[in-house]
Amino acid sequence: MAKGKLFIVGLGPGEARYLIPEASDALSEAEALYGYQPYLERIPAREGQARHPSDNREELVRAGAALAHAAGGARVAMVSGGDPGVFAMAAAVIEAIEAGPAEWRALDLVIVPGITAMLAVAAKCGAPLGHDFCAISLSDNLKPWEVIEKRLRLAAQAGFAMAFYNPVSKARPHQLDTAFDILRAELPVGVPVIFGRAVGRPDERMRVVPLGHARGHMADMATCIIVGSPETRLVERPGLPALVYTPRRAGDE
Amino acid sequence: MAKGKLFIVGLGPGEARYLIPEASDALSEAEALYGYQPYLERIPAREGQARHPSDNREELVRAGAALAHAAGGARVAMVSGGDPGVFAMAAAVIEAIEAGPAEWRALDLVIVPGITAMLAVAAKCGAPLGHDFCAISLSDNLKPWEVIEKRLRLAAQAGFAMAFYNPVSKARPHQLDTAFDILRAELPVGVPVIFGRAVGRPDERMRVVPLGHARGHMADMATCIIVGSPETRLVERPGLPALVYTPRRAGDE
Repeated sequence: MAKGKLFIVGLGPGEARYLIPEASDALSEAEALYGYQPYLERIPAREGQARHPSDNREELVRAGAALAHAAGGARVAMVSGGDPGVFAMAAAVIEAIEAGPAEWRALDLVIVPGITAMLAVAAKCGAPLGHDFCAISLSDNLKPWEVIEKRLRLAAQAGFAMAFYNPVSKARPHQLDTAFDILRAELPVGVPVIFGRAVGRPDERMRVVPLGHARGHMADMATCIIVGSPETRLVERPGLPALVYTPRRAGDE
Repeated sequence: MAKGKLFIVGLGPGEARYLIPEASDALSEAEALYGYQPYLERIPAREGQARHPSDNREELVRAGAALAHAAGGARVAMVSGGDPGVFAMAAAVIEAIEAGPAEWRALDLVIVPGITAMLAVAAKCGAPLGHDFCAISLSDNLKPWEVIEKRLRLAAQAGFAMAFYNPVSKARPHQLDTAFDILRAELPVGVPVIFGRAVGRPDERMRVVPLGHARGHMADMATCIIVGSPETRLVERPGLPALVYTPRRAGDE
């Protein structure tokens, strides 16, 4: 029996112009694709390549199905938005491997990185992640909200710029406002906050407001938020959006 | 006079298989390339395209030269390793724009993201950045070392996995050992530390050691280091390198 192979492929933030050649090659080589349905829809159909779309909440089930398929000797690709290692499918697949049968550990596993949302949002508006920064998921599906609050406070005290993934959902409409309130207690109200929605897709929208004016309703599930550090600055441009950047020189307090 | 255009292009960690199509297109469109010499050497020569290599330390000079060239009406690309917005050229260019003549603000500026080193290193060994994490430059060229020490402590207390850029240089051979000592005072000694050297290039080398055994001499300037969080785990595989991952579920203390 052929040895199975599982690719975990990052599609980047949207259009094909963000897909690295190694990812394109993996998608070509795969006999079957697994993934959240909207991600699979981004990939052109290929003769003889099976597709196994799934719901967003079924990460471990999806991971197990792809692993079992690959363990049967197939070349399988699990697709992920952005980078598979940043709040995406790579950790779920490895969690399934750890809990699964021994043969899953013997698979040829190849993780193909991608442009994660915060890098696309940052590139679109300047260089807000130009100095030390952190990335935090605001979802409390898999961790207590108190841990998130603690991380926000410590990140602000550290002087990190911050990127927020999963900023809101229908089940938790008010937590993003709580997060901004916590940051307003730690940071100057003028710190720029960037709301990057659907960056890299046709309906992309960027908005930059000072922290004092940042509100939860400015984000939805497709938004990646970047909160600057106290050193993050705006460079105004006539007739063009201001550039937002965090200088390379920092912390001369 | 034609309106000038400046691309700031991320080349990713090494080989062309990491270069997104938008970056390839920008490199094709440019009449002139600027950048640190080893990055320019990665790009195939193109008839009629001028090259302006520079030294690693001359970031602002290089930025100003590229901006002045573009302001003359040319299409110019500044190339950067990894992602230009992560400890790379985008912040330097915008800093130069802020300090420069008004015409530089009118330029068509396009920043093209790339696969930054930590994403390539993470993909190579599993998903160590699978939960909240931070990225810190350990260089004290542009910030006091005390700021770095404070950020290390707060990042450990927050439970972040951490990626270190610029971990060592000839001018500061001992600071990485100091950084590990600080982390050993805050974190379990079994936390995995990943040394990813030249990932994405032919001489790539990966090494994973527990924090208790991590030493400064294990890194050089081409190394990106990832320090796990207390929740980061190893999944052993017979005949294959262990997978390193940070579970999606965190902080149930």
